[in-house]
Amino acid sequence: MRHARWRGLLSVLVAPLLVAGVAGAAWAEPTAAAAEQVTRLTDVVPAPVEARPTPGETFSLNPATRIQVDRGAGDVGEQLAHLLRRSTGYWLPVVPDHGFTSNAIVLRLGGADPRVGEEGYQLDVTRRSVVLRANQPAGLFAGVQTLRQLLPAKVESDRPQRGPWRVPAGQVLDYPRFAHRATMLDVARHFLTVDEVKAHIDRIALYKINRLHLHLSDDQGWRIEIKSWPRLATYGGSTEVGGGPGGYYTQDQYRDIVEHARRRHVTIVPEIDMPGHTNAALASYAELNCDGKAPPLYTGIEVGFSSLCVGKDVTYRFVEDVVRELAALTPGPYLHIGGDEAHSTPPADYQEFMRRVLPIVERHGKTPVGWHEMAKAATPPSAVLQYWGRGTTDREVVEAARRGNKVIMSPANRTYLDMKYDPSTKLGLTWAGYIEVRDAYGWEPGGHLADLPESAVLGVEAPLWTETLTDLDEVSFMAFPRLPAVAELGWSPKVTRSWEGFRERLAAQGPRWERMGVAFHRSPQIPWR
Amino acid sequence: MRHARWRGLLSVLVAPLLVAGVAGAAWAEPTAAAAEQVTRLTDVVPAPVEARPTPGETFSLNPATRIQVDRGAGDVGEQLAHLLRRSTGYWLPVVPDHGFTSNAIVLRLGGADPRVGEEGYQLDVTRRSVVLRANQPAGLFAGVQTLRQLLPAKVESDRPQRGPWRVPAGQVLDYPRFAHRATMLDVARHFLTVDEVKAHIDRIALYKINRLHLHLSDDQGWRIEIKSWPRLATYGGSTEVGGGPGGYYTQDQYRDIVEHARRRHVTIVPEIDMPGHTNAALASYAELNCDGKAPPLYTGIEVGFSSLCVGKDVTYRFVEDVVRELAALTPGPYLHIGGDEAHSTPPADYQEFMRRVLPIVERHGKTPVGWHEMAKAATPPSAVLQYWGRGTTDREVVEAARRGNKVIMSPANRTYLDMKYDPSTKLGLTWAGYIEVRDAYGWEPGGHLADLPESAVLGVEAPLWTETLTDLDEVSFMAFPRLPAVAELGWSPKVTRSWEGFRERLAAQGPRWERMGVAFHRSPQIPWR
Repeated sequence: MRHARWRGLLSVLVAPLLVAGVAGAAWAEPTAAAAEQVTRLTDVVPAPVEARPTPGETFSLNPATRIQVDRGAGDVGEQLAHLLRRSTGYWLPVVPDHGFTSNAIVLRLGGADPRVGEEGYQLDVTRRSVVLRANQPAGLFAGVQTLRQLLPAKVESDRPQRGPWRVPAGQVLDYPRFAHRATMLDVARHFLTVDEVKAHIDRIALYKINRLHLHLSDDQGWRIEIKSWPRLATYGGSTEVGGGPGGYYTQDQYRDIVEHARRRHVTIVPEIDMPGHTNAALASYAELNCDGKAPPLYTGIEVGFSSLCVGKDVTYRFVEDVVRELAALTPGPYLHIGGDEAHSTPPADYQEFMRRVLPIVERHGKTPVGWHEMAKAATPPSAVLQYWGRGTTDREVVEAARRGNKVIMSPANRTYLDMKYDPSTKLGLTWAGYIEVRDAYGWEPGGHLADLPESAVLGVEAPLWTETLTDLDEVSFMAFPRLPAVAELGWSPKVTRSWEGFRERLAAQGPRWERMGVAFHRSPQIPWR
Repeated sequence: MRHARWRGLLSVLVAPLLVAGVAGAAWAEPTAAAAEQVTRLTDVVPAPVEARPTPGETFSLNPATRIQVDRGAGDVGEQLAHLLRRSTGYWLPVVPDHGFTSNAIVLRLGGADPRVGEEGYQLDVTRRSVVLRANQPAGLFAGVQTLRQLLPAKVESDRPQRGPWRVPAGQVLDYPRFAHRATMLDVARHFLTVDEVKAHIDRIALYKINRLHLHLSDDQGWRIEIKSWPRLATYGGSTEVGGGPGGYYTQDQYRDIVEHARRRHVTIVPEIDMPGHTNAALASYAELNCDGKAPPLYTGIEVGFSSLCVGKDVTYRFVEDVVRELAALTPGPYLHIGGDEAHSTPPADYQEFMRRVLPIVERHGKTPVGWHEMAKAATPPSAVLQYWGRGTTDREVVEAARRGNKVIMSPANRTYLDMKYDPSTKLGLTWAGYIEVRDAYGWEPGGHLADLPESAVLGVEAPLWTETLTDLDEVSFMAFPRLPAVAELGWSPKVTRSWEGFRERLAAQGPRWERMGVAFHRSPQIPWR
């Protein structure tokens, strides 16, 4: 990825965290419930495959409502209960399903329409109950995200709010279009804490994003403990863009992130970028350099100046050790090895490097993923390419797809969340252009690259680079509302696609983000409520 | 205890368990809250020492209410939350106290008026909060029982009910008159299951009863596993009055009961009755009999025919083993050794037996308790005597008290819960007379026995023998409402005593027992609501 010159880190006015104060006395004398608009069954992002409202009917949460769960649905049930308890103040006990569904939210495993597959669900809301059916817990989790969006926005508050808590009645049948619906966090340019990453996972899961790509190493920092090469983290991770203190995840912390993501049905895809973007590693171990001399740590934002030494055996011992440790920590099937912008690696060396490294990844049981430059190498058919270009043609990617490689669509001018929304945006860069919400939404992942058939597209991913972003609020401001737009491209069928419909549905998310304390861009393109 | 002839086991119509059905739709459209009478601050059994209502003011539980607890108050807080969640359906999170008391029930340890001692509490209810203060968790637990009674009766339901949930405002300062406020369960004549004993503990704790005496052995059955004498339980526990299957508690089950009681600030006082009331032991081990021959198991209800063999050394090895195992299982300070109705033990033998057995109990770290006949022996000053006679004089007890022995008052014609209420009562016996509620309430434990000063009275205890009672419903029918009457004699100061006041306060308990599923006698003396 090429990047424009760094323009400085500017603070941003984030949406204020709205926490309604609740006084006991104020609650003591309930008045008649104020007329409140009920969410529409279609006010969901990403748009569901099918939604049939039952006009004029609602289900209401109340203090006697129970959450009934099948065996295997308990964890999803507890997560739902945790969310609802905070905002409703109701107990909502999670109990085994006993088949009788009055005044209950029921989570059932099995028996769903076969079309919903492993990640989809069916939702039936009547006056008496909310019944979610799925074939796997991931589908129940997705259905719960829909249910969250069907409840009033105040359901996202972290303190009890006054009801009523109505869900519009009707039937939803829903499942994803693409298997890969992802975003990427660059924790190398600026480090993000474990808690920030976890909070980000919570937010993206609400939009049925199922993979989080973590860019764990770059010129400016190495962010994951590798026990066989300890200085990578302790020295290579000791700074960041702008010269701040940086940081890294211990292996236990990384496991903690993986587990937090797993409960939310998000798979972590770790990336160690190579052979370029490796200054932090080269600075930590002199022997990795062809001249045997360690360069200084780097805190700027230029790219393309570093390379592992392709001709040295130690390079491959290093890669083997890193891949072995990272693969052992990562239950998901993918390991991303970067491969982008290797401007300091001669083309023949790049091919030689990939010829030796790709089998290492496969030997450790992982499917290799690389940025689309990896198509220049002899990739095995199992490898996945991530297209990040700004055009609509890429001969090498199309040829790789013909050999069997799947492609993740991350066109920089559509999905790069670090691009400014417009000239007034204080954060972010502009090298791929301004990207307003409509730009992020208005493209078609199945037909974006000429001659690349939809069957070769694994899915979509919106990367977020952090040259100019220093904390979760800044990350959120750039991700919302563009990330939900990309999430919808990944989940919803083409026939549901409509900018007019999307902007209305997106508008309904604003009050949710306010309640959640999520900073977001109040795009003038959206009729915020 | 002498007992009249067994009159057969009769089933009884128990108060039906009232469980209000709750339909989701019915709750969906809240109407204006129905006018509901708020409990009065004085509607508490046992009567509090001081209660000053704040007229016209109430605190209301609502979905945003929190339970704030000091360190050390968490368990009492969780028990309160558990009760309230079931009936209100509110979450009521238990959180550390942060000093700010809006819309909260606050449980504070320390800083209470010194008069409240270890078991008392102060309760301050305002529009904004409920604040309980005590010096020990036992005091907080007692205060929570008062709070339960100040909430509407429906708070005892096991399913969510509609609010409002008002507590009358005001101040209560409360602490017990006597240290010993107990009841006894005879699990020997008819066995009661672990769950029945636990449920009984829950019910008695609501009336601030702090000790449960378990009569674990008698002629008809041995109910506690003794590992060094295993046949006591496996054979001696294999039947009961009427020839039913009997049963016994394993040591783990007994520990479970002790722990269940401990959390409710109830101390278990285990009793092994000796040297009489021992047929089950004598039937289990032939060597315990003077003639070396084991008698058959016994399922009738006569008394006074069995005795351990005072002249044999094996008797004291047996007692030593039993006391050692039971003492090790029992964290409370007392071990009850019976000593009553030893009609088959010559007086000199009785004295010799007690001379050898009392030191065994003390050597195992326990304070010996015995029925009042033990006063005939040379008791150490630490021993406690339980008076169960029907008169108002007892020379031997008074003399023992002069030597330092404390006395528990269990006059049979006032406190024996197995006596019939009146001639129409189907269950129970009559040898000590009929005992209606007013009889159980209308006596003075501090001055009941002539020449026994109040300072010698450790407290009151209401025994419940089970010749005619086979399960928890039958036990409850006999215990309620007489046991709360005796509980009030043990807790409340004499100046609060008034039959007119008590019957009004007791009447308020009826709807609670209905909600709890507690069978009780609808005494015609009480103006039930």
